[in-house]
Amino acid sequence: MQEKLSEIQFSSLFKGAKIGIEKESQRVNLDGELAKTAHPNIFGNRTFHPTIQTDFSETQVEIITPVTTSAEEVMSYLAGLHEVVRRSLPEGEMLWPLSMPPVLPQDEKDIQIAKLDNPKDVAYREHLAKVYGKRKQMVSGIHYNFEFDPILVKRLFADQSEISDYREFRTELYLKVARNYLRYRWLITYLMGAAPQSERGYFSDCGKNAPDMPVRSIRNSNFGYTNDESVFVSYRSIKDYAESIQRLVANGAISEEKEFYSAVRLRGGKTVAEIAEKGVGYIEIRNIDNNPFAPYGITEEQVELLHYFLMYMLWLDNEDCDADELLHKGEALNNQVALENPLTQTSQKAEGLELLAGWLGMAKAIGANETVLTAIEKYQSLMAKPEETLAGQMLTHYNSGLTQCDMAVELGNTYQAQAWEKSYQLAGFDDMELSTQMMIFDSFQKGINVEILDRRDQFLKLSYQDHIEYVKNANMTSLDNYVVPLMMENKTVTKKVLAEAGFSVPGGKEYGDVESANADYGYFVDRGIVVKPKSTNYGLGISIFKDGASEAAYQEAVELAFREDSDILVEDFIEGTEYRFFVIDGQTEAITLRIPANVKGDGTATIRELVAEKNKNPLRGQQYRAPLQKIQTGDLEALMLKEQGYDFDTVLAQDEIVYLRENSNVSTGGDSIDLTEEMPQCYKDIAAQAVVALGAEVSGIDLIIPDINVPADKNDYQAYGIIEANFNPAMHMHAFPFEGPGERLSTIVLDLLFPELKK
Amino acid sequence: MQEKLSEIQFSSLFKGAKIGIEKESQRVNLDGELAKTAHPNIFGNRTFHPTIQTDFSETQVEIITPVTTSAEEVMSYLAGLHEVVRRSLPEGEMLWPLSMPPVLPQDEKDIQIAKLDNPKDVAYREHLAKVYGKRKQMVSGIHYNFEFDPILVKRLFADQSEISDYREFRTELYLKVARNYLRYRWLITYLMGAAPQSERGYFSDCGKNAPDMPVRSIRNSNFGYTNDESVFVSYRSIKDYAESIQRLVANGAISEEKEFYSAVRLRGGKTVAEIAEKGVGYIEIRNIDNNPFAPYGITEEQVELLHYFLMYMLWLDNEDCDADELLHKGEALNNQVALENPLTQTSQKAEGLELLAGWLGMAKAIGANETVLTAIEKYQSLMAKPEETLAGQMLTHYNSGLTQCDMAVELGNTYQAQAWEKSYQLAGFDDMELSTQMMIFDSFQKGINVEILDRRDQFLKLSYQDHIEYVKNANMTSLDNYVVPLMMENKTVTKKVLAEAGFSVPGGKEYGDVESANADYGYFVDRGIVVKPKSTNYGLGISIFKDGASEAAYQEAVELAFREDSDILVEDFIEGTEYRFFVIDGQTEAITLRIPANVKGDGTATIRELVAEKNKNPLRGQQYRAPLQKIQTGDLEALMLKEQGYDFDTVLAQDEIVYLRENSNVSTGGDSIDLTEEMPQCYKDIAAQAVVALGAEVSGIDLIIPDINVPADKNDYQAYGIIEANFNPAMHMHAFPFEGPGERLSTIVLDLLFPELKK
Repeated sequence: MQEKLSEIQFSSLFKGAKIGIEKESQRVNLDGELAKTAHPNIFGNRTFHPTIQTDFSETQVEIITPVTTSAEEVMSYLAGLHEVVRRSLPEGEMLWPLSMPPVLPQDEKDIQIAKLDNPKDVAYREHLAKVYGKRKQMVSGIHYNFEFDPILVKRLFADQSEISDYREFRTELYLKVARNYLRYRWLITYLMGAAPQSERGYFSDCGKNAPDMPVRSIRNSNFGYTNDESVFVSYRSIKDYAESIQRLVANGAISEEKEFYSAVRLRGGKTVAEIAEKGVGYIEIRNIDNNPFAPYGITEEQVELLHYFLMYMLWLDNEDCDADELLHKGEALNNQVALENPLTQTSQKAEGLELLAGWLGMAKAIGANETVLTAIEKYQSLMAKPEETLAGQMLTHYNSGLTQCDMAVELGNTYQAQAWEKSYQLAGFDDMELSTQMMIFDSFQKGINVEILDRRDQFLKLSYQDHIEYVKNANMTSLDNYVVPLMMENKTVTKKVLAEAGFSVPGGKEYGDVESANADYGYFVDRGIVVKPKSTNYGLGISIFKDGASEAAYQEAVELAFREDSDILVEDFIEGTEYRFFVIDGQTEAITLRIPANVKGDGTATIRELVAEKNKNPLRGQQYRAPLQKIQTGDLEALMLKEQGYDFDTVLAQDEIVYLRENSNVSTGGDSIDLTEEMPQCYKDIAAQAVVALGAEVSGIDLIIPDINVPADKNDYQAYGIIEANFNPAMHMHAFPFEGPGERLSTIVLDLLFPELKK
Repeated sequence: MQEKLSEIQFSSLFKGAKIGIEKESQRVNLDGELAKTAHPNIFGNRTFHPTIQTDFSETQVEIITPVTTSAEEVMSYLAGLHEVVRRSLPEGEMLWPLSMPPVLPQDEKDIQIAKLDNPKDVAYREHLAKVYGKRKQMVSGIHYNFEFDPILVKRLFADQSEISDYREFRTELYLKVARNYLRYRWLITYLMGAAPQSERGYFSDCGKNAPDMPVRSIRNSNFGYTNDESVFVSYRSIKDYAESIQRLVANGAISEEKEFYSAVRLRGGKTVAEIAEKGVGYIEIRNIDNNPFAPYGITEEQVELLHYFLMYMLWLDNEDCDADELLHKGEALNNQVALENPLTQTSQKAEGLELLAGWLGMAKAIGANETVLTAIEKYQSLMAKPEETLAGQMLTHYNSGLTQCDMAVELGNTYQAQAWEKSYQLAGFDDMELSTQMMIFDSFQKGINVEILDRRDQFLKLSYQDHIEYVKNANMTSLDNYVVPLMMENKTVTKKVLAEAGFSVPGGKEYGDVESANADYGYFVDRGIVVKPKSTNYGLGISIFKDGASEAAYQEAVELAFREDSDILVEDFIEGTEYRFFVIDGQTEAITLRIPANVKGDGTATIRELVAEKNKNPLRGQQYRAPLQKIQTGDLEALMLKEQGYDFDTVLAQDEIVYLRENSNVSTGGDSIDLTEEMPQCYKDIAAQAVVALGAEVSGIDLIIPDINVPADKNDYQAYGIIEANFNPAMHMHAFPFEGPGERLSTIVLDLLFPELKK
């Protein structure tokens, strides 16, 4: 097997995997006391929520990632889902970062079983409470679902002749991994165990039957979340596995198949009988403690190394001794290591070093990357440094009189605060566009499945049960039809359609050559005009004549515009302020006014200082990674100041406002002002009607309005002018404005896409 | 007025206009005999057809252009509509090219009044038949609707103070034009009169009361289509105009307002009362004879000069004499000129020359272009050359014993044949994409209004009554939703969606850098692969390894692909033939196979001769203006022949096929084969289901199939592979294939867009 897996046609595939993670944590208040509130309402009906659930108790949040194909990808979902949960918690709550529960109520009755719709689910939990006690059920942890690349398994199957049935071959492969894992999992307990102490209330009998603490992992010891010792399940064959579980259920040792708490579960069917019939599809590793030092309970390095450890379990030559004995031995070793003092050397150091050497050897043989090799080498060094294992760190990290509880409260608070630090972003997806991050956030919250079809292209597949929707850039959806954005893309067509529908658009003409543009001077002689390239490009080639142009000036402007484009527009100039109206489903949902980069004096600070101060706003970032951009202090800004007789060292008078840019783009440091509340309804209606006239469902439409306090209707051609409609309008600008409450548009779009989710 | 109109702020606008044309012609058989068939069924219900109608008789086709803004544009519609009519006529019919009708039946009963739905419309025609006789009603002609640029009228209004009401000002302006036109229209009769003789049956009394023929225009004389002499309508004021018409109706001189047959009608309301109230909006010039030498009954030069003549009617200083006397004088002069022998000098030559000099002066004063100036100068010369007027040409053109009827038959046949010469094009719109031309053709035929929103962008506004649809490139419509084409644009997303829906797509991966692509060699080691840039670009950077690649070859291919794009794909190679399936509304409607440019030998001709022969196919054109492209004989073709041991002078054996290109693109001379009939239903179903899975309504999807004779379903991964789905698939390739019947897809799309039109 080892030789085979080292060959190129297998080794590439061997490194591939499908990984999915489930992670539980207790909800607590900011002092670390178990929450008394219900699971947040905002997640909707728990029965159908695919990613955010409750496990045993109402306070035990379970986060479930989709199946991913890399450690990086699974961490991305784990991060995003955590951030959604943290931002959805009632104020004053956070997630308890430990596997071991926080202080538990004196009376077990005060532990609230999860309030689920399905009576069977509640009954099962009540059964668990009776058999194991509610306290043990309050332990949290991580389940790690793992599948080898199916093509690897197929190739390995094709490359042998001992087993003629593919499903049987695959089953044997996973059985081998499972057995080896059960045998050697003590090493994971040593390296990643993170449950050294319990809090008050975990041991119901005042700790009489508790182990001597600290240990490496209470959770992974027989004091943790385990079946009765009499519960033994064989992994010798899939038949034995299925039969032993079925027997345990039949004789009442466990109430349901899922009550079998093994460190490894075989998966691939709803019942063990189904798994036995269809073959094992993947395995579930269940002995991973929450890592308190990782904001999401596990690090990417851990995920990657668990993957490589499972690969190593396949790589290892087949065990000599009896399969069941092997399990008993593994069980005993694990319990022994779990109950060792975390700061002492482990009794199994020799075997550990041997395993690690083999593991590293495998990694090298198959060409693992440097990160993996370094990580395994680090783990090698941990065999001699127990204080650097997770449990060891938990004890040493807080050694100045702080309790484990103090540490958990501090870490929990830190992570909770971090989740709000850049509230316009979504951790794990912060390389994507802000509007798309908002859409993913909302989808996670509402229980809509999110698959990233193309990350750089902002292409999402959203699904809720059988209903699939594709979304690009958060606003390109099935709600709009194909021809509408094409219409908006063509400014001449947009204007024609709006004009024919009776809206006020700047009059004007399009020209393909200088001669015909010049010949038409007479059309524009008596009014304010704008001469511009048909495709606007950073304002280049645009000439504005507010009071009309002389023929010479007109011709010069035409010349200038043609330098930028092969087609130009000459349009009526409309005096007024430009507002962006965001219209969804025939309603104006947000209005933003953009103001050029500016600072306001206080009588003492220089412009440079005022800029620096204004740039401290956490909404201001760089390179479009934030809803507002930092004000620059470059040549353009210096020039603009100079024209006003200022420089960066000028001290501005109290309340004096100075602009550092001519253009109002947010991308050059401009301010966005949410005017949704302030804008009179008549203009909201005009904008909404114009978008409806264009046949669009979602659009950002730009109106120039001389005075919003003058009431108007669509026929008042002097009262407003529609400049353009945008087929890819950003949403984040409206959600996170410089001033004003902000409007979350992504939620409205999601509600339209998935009306079945709207209550 | 003249000085004012010469100023720049007026002169530009003065040259603008809105023009719409109505043109009648009789349907005849190819021998020039009045058709006995009904108006073609294919035009649907006449009651709602906006552009193709019947006038008095069932054989009298009336073509109505929309309102346009230039001579060029109106000619474009006139040409397109004529071509639609001609191609929709029953075989063996054509349009009679003269204003004067063809030989009419001996018995007036054999002239069939138009079979209209509305009994009132039929009753009106029966009334006309009774009062004027059916024969006179069979005369055809052109009505020319004209409006000045409304902005010009507004500016002229703003620039004066005599009239304080805008509508009154506008009305007076058009009244002046109308009066002057009625006074001077004899000049138009002289220049454009084209009805020198009648055919048998026009004069019912065996010609006893006929004039001495030839004349310039029977139609424009009192032998034409005129009211009784007693019918006089004043143009002195709008009040007088309305009252005189109302009086005529009241006393029964005419049955309805529209029975008033003036050379100029004032327009702008449904009744004269409404026009009087709302003011005159535009005028209708009704005295233009069909020009037999113009395939569409009038030339662009005529349209332009009529426009300039109407401008001149405004330009001319106000008449001194009484408005009604002026009309009587104009009427008499026109009748006199209309009845002159076309080959003689006109009695009104002196006034004509004076008018033409003033007209030319105006054109120069306002900066008319050379074409206009030259045309007016040509008209000046016609005053001395009556044989070159239209009527003059009709007599001289056919002076070798041919009758006017012979000439009409010959011209009618010529135009009818021309309409079919390039049946894949639509005259007047042949600068647009072929698929869009097909869509316009079908729309005209079905009675859907067509507005060209952006000609170069292939953007159409189609409307039928209140129902508007926007169409771009003939296949981008409201039928599809916004996100579907974006999905198809991204090949990785398309493949993911299709694969998740269970279709066979080439497996593979996308890479953003050389290292990760090379690291994955193991994935592809054992199978045929294609390494290619993500955005395919004329086949550059593509490497195909039908039987798998060595690691070195793989790495070289990766390197090569990255030279063309920042992202590359490595995909499974699928062996087979590529077919384009065109799917609409869940049905495969057309399948085309493309074969590289090739010729087939006959044992005597050289390859060069065979290419020349094959290129004679009228479907082959150049620069995408035809459904097939001419086979080139350039360097690439020479090289391809050389590799086969041939050159252009090689004589091919009987039935030997030689390919001149490697690629099968139609754009490089390839053949398209319509296989819609031959393709087994199972593959049609797979293609249709795949398009449905993508959520698309209209799409061209490319399948590679090793053997179409092997039945398959969507799960047979070996039987087919989907290469890509196209969001802008050409339709003309399917409509006009090199081989096979061809499928007209534009009609199916139109039926989906306007289901109300489907019978």
